Amino acid sequence: MNQPSISSSSPSTRGPADHDIRDQIVAAANEHFSQYGYSKTTVSDLAKAIGFSKAYIYKFFDSKQAIGEAICANCLAEIVAAVEQAINVEGLSPTERFRRLVKTVIATGVNLFFNDRKLYDIAAFAASESWPSTQAYDAQIKSFVSQIVREGREIGEFERKTPLDETVEAIHLALRPFVNPLLLQYNLDFVEEAPTLTSNLILRSLMP
Amino acid sequence: MNQPSISSSSPSTRGPADHDIRDQIVAAANEHFSQYGYSKTTVSDLAKAIGFSKAYIYKFFDSKQAIGEAICANCLAEIVAAVEQAINVEGLSPTERFRRLVKTVIATGVNLFFNDRKLYDIAAFAASESWPSTQAYDAQIKSFVSQIVREGREIGEFERKTPLDETVEAIHLALRPFVNPLLLQYNLDFVEEAPTLTSNLILRSLMP
Repeated sequence: MNQPSISSSSPSTRGPADHDIRDQIVAAANEHFSQYGYSKTTVSDLAKAIGFSKAYIYKFFDSKQAIGEAICANCLAEIVAAVEQAINVEGLSPTERFRRLVKTVIATGVNLFFNDRKLYDIAAFAASESWPSTQAYDAQIKSFVSQIVREGREIGEFERKTPLDETVEAIHLALRPFVNPLLLQYNLDFVEEAPTLTSNLILRSLMP
Repeated sequence: MNQPSISSSSPSTRGPADHDIRDQIVAAANEHFSQYGYSKTTVSDLAKAIGFSKAYIYKFFDSKQAIGEAICANCLAEIVAAVEQAINVEGLSPTERFRRLVKTVIATGVNLFFNDRKLYDIAAFAASESWPSTQAYDAQIKSFVSQIVREGREIGEFERKTPLDETVEAIHLALRPFVNPLLLQYNLDFVEEAPTLTSNLILRSLMP
């Protein structure tokens, strides 16, 4: 077995190098899952593929799900990063920011579905089981929505009569078919028209 | 085999009594699918359960899917009938009609899910394969939406600037997670708040 020298350290004395090993396991698992799928891969398969012992992997991750969680978190973080980049451009109006949010979340999700189907399947499975990574992703998208709505209200671009929480919750619910990886796969027929139709409807609902 | 006397008639000379036999097959299949599920039941199983020969069943239905289609159409027709009854009450405003549409489509769908799960599964499977029954159901819900929006525009309760088609399409898309049986099962966590949140958002978007 190709065991790194750090293998003798106990979990209580983990140093920064442990992060590298975790990353190494995640990267290898990512590749393995991408090829064979999450559900069909066991920790033994992973151990064999990476060249670590199963026991060694269990020093860093409690379960296969924990590895899946790390992969899923990375993958959803990419969507969040893409959205963040698209909306945080100086000088954009809240309306334009919102359109970009919807467009980007759909485009990156669809891209993941078509170009990294096995990883997409992990994210969809994670969403179906409400893994913490998908809850965090959901919360981040919602916080983007909340930011945009608050900004739009402040400058008088959006109405202020509806309680902010209700507005944000309702928008989040309306975007769920495209934000949630489990649902997106059933809405692929609508991803061409949805960014415009759904954004327009929501923006009309926000008019002062 | 318990073959009705009509079994000698060819398809080209089918009379009204054939409808009764079709209904009889559909009713028996409905019961059988409800108990054992659609995917696990073969036409042979059905034939045995009903007491007809397989060949006799094939005189009335081309395939298991054709029987499933008939069941699915009945089941979705119940949702449509419930919505129709809820919204076609004299004296209701378009706003109130719309709220009732959303509430009823969600309530009857959820009721089907929890009380007739195997039938729900047929409808969900049908929706995933876009069977004609689910297309017809979709079109009927959309036509209710269209009726209500047109009425609201005529009496000045809703805005008229957005092209009617766009408005109806966008609303239909926003309701899809609750109208489509395949999607509803993944949105059960939201069925309490969705009727109010989603209706409010859509109605705000319709304000003149």
